[in-house]
Amino acid sequence: MENFTFCSPTYFAFGDGQERQTGALVRRFGGTRVLLVYGGGSVRRNGAYDDAVSALRQADIPFWELSGVQPNPRSGKVYEGIDLCRREGVDFLLAVGGGSAIDTAKAIAVGVPYDGDFWDLYSGRAAEKSLPVGVVLTLAATGSEASDSSVITHEEGNRKWGNTKSDVYRPVFAVMNPHYTCTLPPYQTACGAADMLSHILERYFTPTDHVDVTDRLCEGLMQSILAAAPQALAHPDDYHARAELMWAGMLAHNNLCGVGRKQDWACHQMEHELSALCGCAHGAGLAALTPAWMTYVMDRDVTRFAQFAVRVFGCPMDFRHPEVTAREGIARLTAWLRSIGMPVTLGELGFPAEDIPAAVAHRRLKPNPFPFGTFAAIGPEDMEAILRLAAEPR
Amino acid sequence: MENFTFCSPTYFAFGDGQERQTGALVRRFGGTRVLLVYGGGSVRRNGAYDDAVSALRQADIPFWELSGVQPNPRSGKVYEGIDLCRREGVDFLLAVGGGSAIDTAKAIAVGVPYDGDFWDLYSGRAAEKSLPVGVVLTLAATGSEASDSSVITHEEGNRKWGNTKSDVYRPVFAVMNPHYTCTLPPYQTACGAADMLSHILERYFTPTDHVDVTDRLCEGLMQSILAAAPQALAHPDDYHARAELMWAGMLAHNNLCGVGRKQDWACHQMEHELSALCGCAHGAGLAALTPAWMTYVMDRDVTRFAQFAVRVFGCPMDFRHPEVTAREGIARLTAWLRSIGMPVTLGELGFPAEDIPAAVAHRRLKPNPFPFGTFAAIGPEDMEAILRLAAEPR
Repeated sequence: MENFTFCSPTYFAFGDGQERQTGALVRRFGGTRVLLVYGGGSVRRNGAYDDAVSALRQADIPFWELSGVQPNPRSGKVYEGIDLCRREGVDFLLAVGGGSAIDTAKAIAVGVPYDGDFWDLYSGRAAEKSLPVGVVLTLAATGSEASDSSVITHEEGNRKWGNTKSDVYRPVFAVMNPHYTCTLPPYQTACGAADMLSHILERYFTPTDHVDVTDRLCEGLMQSILAAAPQALAHPDDYHARAELMWAGMLAHNNLCGVGRKQDWACHQMEHELSALCGCAHGAGLAALTPAWMTYVMDRDVTRFAQFAVRVFGCPMDFRHPEVTAREGIARLTAWLRSIGMPVTLGELGFPAEDIPAAVAHRRLKPNPFPFGTFAAIGPEDMEAILRLAAEPR
Repeated sequence: MENFTFCSPTYFAFGDGQERQTGALVRRFGGTRVLLVYGGGSVRRNGAYDDAVSALRQADIPFWELSGVQPNPRSGKVYEGIDLCRREGVDFLLAVGGGSAIDTAKAIAVGVPYDGDFWDLYSGRAAEKSLPVGVVLTLAATGSEASDSSVITHEEGNRKWGNTKSDVYRPVFAVMNPHYTCTLPPYQTACGAADMLSHILERYFTPTDHVDVTDRLCEGLMQSILAAAPQALAHPDDYHARAELMWAGMLAHNNLCGVGRKQDWACHQMEHELSALCGCAHGAGLAALTPAWMTYVMDRDVTRFAQFAVRVFGCPMDFRHPEVTAREGIARLTAWLRSIGMPVTLGELGFPAEDIPAAVAHRRLKPNPFPFGTFAAIGPEDMEAILRLAAEPR
């Protein structure tokens, strides 16, 4: 186990009706002038927008609105939000929605007190200050409701980049009512499950030894997600399946599963290039890449892949040929992703194989583009090979 | 899953050398005049006392000392600490040690700003304010370094009672260097493991359905503890085993494993009477009681006990006779506790069977003494029957 620090101070109000606490929570965490950040249709359909607006009105808290945040959220909205906050003296961001609304709110929140261009904070510079961000979550997926991360796409160069990780990005509260997620289309439910599973896998596949506690937490959470996602798809109104997914999504990414161990994140790095170029849903992009990445890097630590297969998927251990067990784990994960309607190849994702070189080239726009990943260091040739593998039928 | 709120804001600095952060952490959380709270011999032997003192001196933070805190810590030290803090204008408590030092520091911290007798806050009244408490942990056991709990024994009537749970009791930081625990005597290491296992079991055995995520977290943590404790006993200097135990002990009791589900706590309630009367170590008392409690309540939900046996101990499931599997799980736990040197009967604990009626009678001093427990409601006759069962040889 490596040394670490960990602090996940977010206050969670979880369950049916907790959205009625929103006004009191904004006040408790110092909000007196609020910017409500959201996308569009879904938060109006599931009632979250109306609930948040009435909670603020009842608490007599003045608020402004920034709507129209898109999936794979873009810098334009962030600049617009920063201007609005400065102009109106906003001191609190309330995101209503999923990862896109939250990540936009986070970017605005660090951008307002920052002297330069907020994009610096997504190009390697660490944020030192942030306005407080509260969340009303309507999508179980990104874990942004408690994480120290935020990902924004800059229109200029279509650069989909993450912030430099810092605890200042962690929301102060998250209202989590699983009912809000019952109206999600099946594809989005599945993308959410694939995303949270990936957040665990990125931490699980590590070169660090002696990490049994976090291994076990990862394995347990993955088993819960594997069970709950098909239930939520079969019975969209199943509150309990939605609740398991919602809480698992948070735990998958507040870094409880990642402390004391090197983390990989290669699939996320590659996926950002896919979704920047083809606009795919993040979870779907991860699903299409993960089996190929696993196959490509498996030989680095067959034992860990066998452990994954045995503990998470209950595969029988082939003690003489652990690589057989390891491959079986990858096959089971692939089959599971397909069973929930996720693409498991670039073709199924809608990413043309001829654009693979463009994805690799686009990665080079980043500062320090290669190598990435700690379980296996991925250089440009590796990235191209993994994408080619992901383009093959499976 | 039930509705819940959860907030575990403690900042953890985990690993070798993290004690050097202590001064900076005290400053960061507002400490300018500090009371150092500790027991005696062990923190001097393992170096934690000297390290804390030099950290405070280097950070130029004035401090006072309250030493001599005993296991099963008593109210006398709390009153002494409250007086000292008020007299000297102390604004920060730094506990160096295990649960006894931390629980004493917590009691002082809520007592200083409270107008009445601090004991009110251990007799049903909720604390509203607390001075900040920081921790340098030297024992992996109680989880008090991040929990909302504290248990104090009042000299008058020998009442070992817990606080009314509240987030104000959560420490602001915990420095956790596993090296400090390498010099623990084997018995204390084992008591710590039994205590953290019990913190999970008290949450695991629940009447609440649809709690898969927390079930899985509980099961994973228990498996880690079952593996790490024997390693630490066989090789006291094994940093990695100590690290797993130390982190598991925190996770076992910051309530991450208990959200959204009713919790039981019957064994803890009964154990407090045992240790109040016979002065046994808390973990040992829990070990001596838990197999008897399990046997007594198993019929309430045989399926849950079978799940425990299969998932935690890898017992084969007897699908036609799940009670066989359930009993096998209890037997395996009992054998494991014995294997690490824990008592599994009252006789082994040193609690005389003839004092059983006195333990039940002593419980009646509490406000609302019976029934307790949610998995099974324990009345006075049940408590007596469980203690008698615990007195039988196994």
